[in-house]
Amino acid sequence: MRVCRIAHAGGTSYASWEGEEFAELADPFAPRPRHTGARISPAAARLLAPVEPRTVVGMAHNTGAADSALPPAAFLKAARSVVGPGAAVRLPDDAGRTVAEGELALVIGRETTDVRPADLLSCVLGLTVANDVTDRSAQHDDPLWTAAKSRHTFTPVGPWIETGLDRADLQITVTVNGVEASRASTAGLARDLGEILAYVARLMPLGPGDLVLTGAPGPEAPLRAGDAVGVRIDGLGELGNPVEAWHARQGAAA
Amino acid sequence: MRVCRIAHAGGTSYASWEGEEFAELADPFAPRPRHTGARISPAAARLLAPVEPRTVVGMAHNTGAADSALPPAAFLKAARSVVGPGAAVRLPDDAGRTVAEGELALVIGRETTDVRPADLLSCVLGLTVANDVTDRSAQHDDPLWTAAKSRHTFTPVGPWIETGLDRADLQITVTVNGVEASRASTAGLARDLGEILAYVARLMPLGPGDLVLTGAPGPEAPLRAGDAVGVRIDGLGELGNPVEAWHARQGAAA
Repeated sequence: MRVCRIAHAGGTSYASWEGEEFAELADPFAPRPRHTGARISPAAARLLAPVEPRTVVGMAHNTGAADSALPPAAFLKAARSVVGPGAAVRLPDDAGRTVAEGELALVIGRETTDVRPADLLSCVLGLTVANDVTDRSAQHDDPLWTAAKSRHTFTPVGPWIETGLDRADLQITVTVNGVEASRASTAGLARDLGEILAYVARLMPLGPGDLVLTGAPGPEAPLRAGDAVGVRIDGLGELGNPVEAWHARQGAAA
Repeated sequence: MRVCRIAHAGGTSYASWEGEEFAELADPFAPRPRHTGARISPAAARLLAPVEPRTVVGMAHNTGAADSALPPAAFLKAARSVVGPGAAVRLPDDAGRTVAEGELALVIGRETTDVRPADLLSCVLGLTVANDVTDRSAQHDDPLWTAAKSRHTFTPVGPWIETGLDRADLQITVTVNGVEASRASTAGLARDLGEILAYVARLMPLGPGDLVLTGAPGPEAPLRAGDAVGVRIDGLGELGNPVEAWHARQGAAA
């Protein structure tokens, strides 16, 4: 099933995509998701980020086979940094060299606490596409990575969740202004999805709608204001976002 | 106003404490919070963590005046690590030396993105008490701190939110089994609440119910299974939690 979150005249809904229209879902995280009966035309709907997570966690040391010699490590991104397909990635004027990282993301369907490691993959609702936007300069200056990973709009996710996909070798392609910047397979990651989920679920509680970003197997793609960035994964579709300049008037001097 | 989140026979509600009973609130984050008219007796209610945040962020380099020479730094804790007053802090059997840190926490009332730095304190709904439980051994091994800060139950918060408190010198007392382990004032922090909020809000979007932990001005208090840990702040009440051993069967070998 292709699970979407959409904005429409009646508000915001979860829905499955039925080929020509959306069929509203009462709760995609229920043990047996139920359709409400409402149908929504794609012309009257806009795709949102497919979840509103409370946890967004990414894997460090997971960009290629060589990383399997390093201990696993994870980092948190601010949950509110998530935006949907088509939403602008805002490059703050106080950011340094900022890059896109195309990644496969696990969407958690139910609570992982007290689930045995062998059963953890049953807590995954499905897969989606994520762009782990990162300020490389800030990452160099902040050993905790907080200043690099969590800026507003730095986690585009979507366009939807595929629940049936079960393959270890998904091709991830990142494009900037339509030009291929990176192409690599999730088979190139240092750790597989089961190892990643076991590591993360030991360190923190996960629950419905949470996202586990599995690492970027390909090279990063530098971003500039005015660019259009896309991340495409086999069988999952393409997540596209414009890149805009943003005046970070929030800022106290760091 | 003292804003609580309570479990009762009718479900889970926000409520204000009116001296002898709770008065249910429709939405404490509304511009003008409105009472529903329902009253609930304390005998029929149990206090929960006063918020269900999407963001929990703490300040590094903020434990005393000497830290003001260091650049500010922030870390994220997993949002689902939050538990309420009376809930057990579970010490996993694979954790190292684990400590309590008593901290004043800002409860965010509305979105901070696009708010000018000078106006950020108006986004704060009120103050509460937090215990930033930390596995010091894991913090040493994981430079990103993720393994140290986000274990299930590692962020007790409560007992409630005080909306009217406006003082820079609040006394924080940490007790273990009733014995004082630490006593210090928020006046001893390297950075004041306005500086902390300006720093954090520049790095990430914050919104209703999010928590900003402001740093522990006093010494840490080691925790063992069987302990009872308390964090008391002048004018905010006491957050008390039992400490239990927990078999972390989640774990893949790290």
